[in-house]
Amino acid sequence: MVPSTPPAAITLLTDFGLADHFVGVLKGVIERIAPGARVIDISHAVRPYALDQARFLLAQSWLYFPAGTVHVVVVDPGVGSARRAIVVETAGHLFVGPDNGVLADVLTRGDARVREIENRALMRSEISATFHGRDVFAPVAAHLAAGVAIAEVGPVIDDAVRLATFAATQIAADRWCGAVVHIDRFGNLITNLPCDLGSADCTIHVGRVTICGVAPNYAAARDDVPIAVAGSSGMLEIAISQGDAARVLGITVGARVELTV
Amino acid sequence: MVPSTPPAAITLLTDFGLADHFVGVLKGVIERIAPGARVIDISHAVRPYALDQARFLLAQSWLYFPAGTVHVVVVDPGVGSARRAIVVETAGHLFVGPDNGVLADVLTRGDARVREIENRALMRSEISATFHGRDVFAPVAAHLAAGVAIAEVGPVIDDAVRLATFAATQIAADRWCGAVVHIDRFGNLITNLPCDLGSADCTIHVGRVTICGVAPNYAAARDDVPIAVAGSSGMLEIAISQGDAARVLGITVGARVELTV
Amino acid sequence: MVPSTPPAAITLLTDFGLADHFVGVLKGVIERIAPGARVIDISHAVRPYALDQARFLLAQSWLYFPAGTVHVVVVDPGVGSARRAIVVETAGHLFVGPDNGVLADVLTRGDARVREIENRALMRSEISATFHGRDVFAPVAAHLAAGVAIAEVGPVIDDAVRLATFAATQIAADRWCGAVVHIDRFGNLITNLPCDLGSADCTIHVGRVTICGVAPNYAAARDDVPIAVAGSSGMLEIAISQGDAARVLGITVGARVELTV
Repeated sequence: MVPSTPPAAITLLTDFGLADHFVGVLKGVIERIAPGARVIDISHAVRPYALDQARFLLAQSWLYFPAGTVHVVVVDPGVGSARRAIVVETAGHLFVGPDNGVLADVLTRGDARVREIENRALMRSEISATFHGRDVFAPVAAHLAAGVAIAEVGPVIDDAVRLATFAATQIAADRWCGAVVHIDRFGNLITNLPCDLGSADCTIHVGRVTICGVAPNYAAARDDVPIAVAGSSGMLEIAISQGDAARVLGITVGARVELTV
Repeated sequence: MVPSTPPAAITLLTDFGLADHFVGVLKGVIERIAPGARVIDISHAVRPYALDQARFLLAQSWLYFPAGTVHVVVVDPGVGSARRAIVVETAGHLFVGPDNGVLADVLTRGDARVREIENRALMRSEISATFHGRDVFAPVAAHLAAGVAIAEVGPVIDDAVRLATFAATQIAADRWCGAVVHIDRFGNLITNLPCDLGSADCTIHVGRVTICGVAPNYAAARDDVPIAVAGSSGMLEIAISQGDAARVLGITVGARVELTV
Repeated sequence: MVPSTPPAAITLLTDFGLADHFVGVLKGVIERIAPGARVIDISHAVRPYALDQARFLLAQSWLYFPAGTVHVVVVDPGVGSARRAIVVETAGHLFVGPDNGVLADVLTRGDARVREIENRALMRSEISATFHGRDVFAPVAAHLAAGVAIAEVGPVIDDAVRLATFAATQIAADRWCGAVVHIDRFGNLITNLPCDLGSADCTIHVGRVTICGVAPNYAAARDDVPIAVAGSSGMLEIAISQGDAARVLGITVGARVELTV
């Protein structure tokens, strides 16, 4: 049953949660088409329909996988409507998902090529109106992981849905305006301010808090004092050592963050 | 360490949750007996002891896996008591679990054969009173996935526990009475009314809401207006586009749903 | 891409949760270094920074895996500070994590050998201040699973951080004093009193409850009556059949438990 070349790895990023059967079914469909494929969960805890959260998690994770990996991203409020299904190819990685902007960050890369998924032979024979993860995206991803050529999927298109990026903006010679783009499990506030803007002398304003300078690590902080650190995402984070900065500071995703260099 | 024929895939469906060590331990036991086996989680978020919820999730998922798959289902309030352990074989799939009704839907299929698990050589040498997932079900499943013949498990029995099915009932020439049998992550109400009862002209009553006709997909709905759609399970669902129908309508599993064709 | 000998299995036990990208990224890093490695989650629901909870879950799970397994344990409030990173080898298993006590139970075993992780060639080329799971622990584990000799990691050390064990203490000829060390998904109270202290005649006090004798299994209990059972961990548990003992009794981790034989 296992082909001579093992299938590529497949990652899954959805808003399906882990309580229902949805994620297990995706894996069953994949196991049938590409037996032995490693299927790796990025997250299934994206808030229902939250494209921006999925975009953040995808941006944080895909580059750590080997070239050849097939990434399935399903946050799909328009499932069953006329919205297209696409595959994006960039940097040797493949991305499969709805054409609703959830793949906007990878399809704007210089070498990205986007194809519309049209080939019914790569889908399940019956396609529901509500679960294209099962009927379209997982089967297509499994066929690609098993070695089907990407050209089989469908024609190249150049009008896939694009969305604005999360970049911070420079508002003065020494001043940047950004936002909290994610709050992680620990309550750390991940901003869109690149780490190299930070220094021992910079000043960061978020909510009612002012933070002076970037600390070397979480443990360098005194109890309950918010600090800025160079985050693992390449962006500055606001954190409280062994505390929950989001809760203590009362800050949510989208909060404005200002940095003076 | 890896046998020449790779082991079959194994699925897991339990009420163990993901916070404790239980699921990891099942996978360790399997890895020891059938190294390299793919173990796929269906769900571990079944409410403790909720046989009906496990039955629903199993019915929604097992057919999407390839023949040969071994499905382990452990929702087992009677663990350690005299309740039997069984293996069901149907349609080339194997199901391993307690004989308490959680496998009732597969063991009543026409070609189903049920065996009681008796062979101690396929279990862990010490069997606890509280964790037969680890000591009985996972080891038996791993041996089956690794190629042990099903007849080795124990004798065929014909008196396994059966439970009533979830089918809707016809209450008049043009009228069906069913129920909400599951609420998914998005708050969609999955009923036991088959999709082919629905049409553009049917009327559905649930709670204090009346819905006229079946919509083509979620996105066809106006904001906050409940709709019926043909669900991916083959059953009609009540949904609110990008909303949580269960919460908005105040409806829980078991609620009565009436359909007039 | 797959080496001739398949890589060893790798387990993951962290406080990262499953909502963020963290766990997926660990698996991507591993897939790159050790393609095809089976990566098995023990739990990612350890409360942030809760070393004791991670120690309990590790103690409950690692022995069920085959020799050769590499266990990655990341609960790491001191990430990025001067705390060391270590590998422990015992009973043919390898353990990778921070030197903060989270591995204290395995490194005090008679045959345990501890090495400090020093070899930069086994880490990611850039090491962040906040995510050593990605940059140090997962890469080292993947290299070990792929066959790198443990001596490559770094020098043997003998001063790794040790923490007190959870053992109960004998306070009289016929009396033991222990504690609730874990509450599982079902609300069962897992104590540190070994099962062999229990008998049909013993008496157990916890909170305002007195329990006489150890029951053979959960199902032996009458509704809502707390019982003691021989737990699957080898320790006595307090449970309510099909109920949540922790909630009903109002008991949390750390509560004192007394047993009279």
